Amino acid sequence: MAPPDANLHPVATGRAAETVSQHQNPQDLTFYSAWFCPFSQRVWIVLEEKGIPYQYKEVNPYKKEEHFLQINPRGLAPAVEYRGKAIYESLVLLEFLEDAYPSYKPNLLPSDPSDRAHQRIWIDHIAKAVVPVSMRLTMTQPNEQEKLETARNELYEALRKLQNEIKGTCFAGERFTLVDAVIVPWVLRDYVSAEHRAFKREDVGDGWAEYAKAIETRDSVCRTMSVSERDKAKVIYNRYLGGDAQSEAAKAIKAGRPIP
Amino acid sequence: MAPPDANLHPVATGRAAETVSQHQNPQDLTFYSAWFCPFSQRVWIVLEEKGIPYQYKEVNPYKKEEHFLQINPRGLAPAVEYRGKAIYESLVLLEFLEDAYPSYKPNLLPSDPSDRAHQRIWIDHIAKAVVPVSMRLTMTQPNEQEKLETARNELYEALRKLQNEIKGTCFAGERFTLVDAVIVPWVLRDYVSAEHRAFKREDVGDGWAEYAKAIETRDSVCRTMSVSERDKAKVIYNRYLGGDAQSEAAKAIKAGRPIP
Ligand SMILES: N[C@@H](CCC(=O)N[C@@H](CS)C(=O)NCC(=O)O)C(=O)O
Ligand SMILES: N[C@@H](CCC(=O)N[C@@H](CS)C(=O)NCC(=O)O)C(=O)O
Repeated sequence: MAPPDANLHPVATGRAAETVSQHQNPQDLTFYSAWFCPFSQRVWIVLEEKGIPYQYKEVNPYKKEEHFLQINPRGLAPAVEYRGKAIYESLVLLEFLEDAYPSYKPNLLPSDPSDRAHQRIWIDHIAKAVVPVSMRLTMTQPNEQEKLETARNELYEALRKLQNEIKGTCFAGERFTLVDAVIVPWVLRDYVSAEHRAFKREDVGDGWAEYAKAIETRDSVCRTMSVSERDKAKVIYNRYLGGDAQSEAAKAIKAGRPIP
Repeated sequence: MAPPDANLHPVATGRAAETVSQHQNPQDLTFYSAWFCPFSQRVWIVLEEKGIPYQYKEVNPYKKEEHFLQINPRGLAPAVEYRGKAIYESLVLLEFLEDAYPSYKPNLLPSDPSDRAHQRIWIDHIAKAVVPVSMRLTMTQPNEQEKLETARNELYEALRKLQNEIKGTCFAGERFTLVDAVIVPWVLRDYVSAEHRAFKREDVGDGWAEYAKAIETRDSVCRTMSVSERDKAKVIYNRYLGGDAQSEAAKAIKAGRPIP
């Protein structure tokens, strides 16, 4: 059997394709990314925000190709090779970029230790409370009315908690931070549950729609988003919406296990 | 109804009680800890390793007392108040201690960015793959033979992956690091699944039992472990073993949701 989603559109399109074409030369840092992957996009946005030199390599993580498993044994995008060392997990990669490129501005974590901790608490909240339930919402079938409502309300509640912490156009005020980079790929893709699962930005609470708009239109975000994502990513989202996605995350959600 | 586990033994015993008694004076950092809590112990070990001045305050997180919810709205131990700011989540707290007390040695994260990332990858592995499955193993009932075997094998596999990365008596060689602090509270408590769920350190693989012994006998670890934990914590573990634990984590595992 072909691996799930092994045949999707192979490369980024539109502005993201342009960004890819500008990052073809070998560098200290090779960025293995899947154009459709929200976890990859977190890292990509930060690379672009900071102007870090990188070589972009497209990978289809569903194929579990041997060369990629050598870099990330978990077989998930994103991953990085940095001077011969392999690094993966989007949140670990964001911290790595802050650590390894201190002179590339802006810093996306504050320097005050308590403020850093505060941002990490909310990054943890996104990882534990926002991402899994948003995936669960998409995977819940329209005829499972009660489950659907529960998932939608849980998503609203998780986003509302985050929203209550927002201090300006970005999470911490006017400056873009890691928290914004961590949530924005899910903001960009909330059209899937808006179209199919009655999700409404307005129903999160006052200010959420404005925050969403402010971060999703940011330049680094646009430069890393395939314009034709809605068209080309359909094959993926339809699997989730139809309840037969076979990604590691989808299997974990179905089995009631932590997403990898 | 009384909150679950609201009536357990109220304070640490033995060497841990001694450590508590040495940390009663107000300091910049107030450490809210539950004596039986493995997540709290991670932070406690690091406070002791680095000799950071702290005031210890015992909290029973099951009671969800208002004063504690003011500090950690999630209502979970551990939490910290640092110069009037509230910080929680054990892994966030460990990073915070490294950030806020750079002159308190030893550093428990390496300074090289790739090495730091490597340690964070394995901390993430412990959080996602070791902790939830070890809890699931304890909660699986003896008559659910197949589930029990699956959980035990998954735990062995998760620990084996970690073990393959161990470079010396500690995770990264001879020096104690955050990875060791993150796993050791579960090593100390593996007697529960050894006694009731046929878990054997030897069955993880070559070297695991030696590593476990080396880190669990470390001074900072002994200083933060209640000697009578096996006796006093029984009331908690019996709830897990009996399948009716009502902690947030237990409820999440049962519902197939991410543990908070
Ligand atoms: N925890 C990982 C999750 C990465 C992830 O799930 N990536 C997806 C693509 S969006 C993947 O590689 N899936 C391959 C698969 O499920 O087989 C991270 O934060 O980097
Ligand atoms: N993710 C949290 C988990 C903390 C946690 O679950 N602590 C337990 C005690 S060991 C707790 O406070 N439980 C209270 C409850 O479940 O109501 C961390 O890493 O700090």
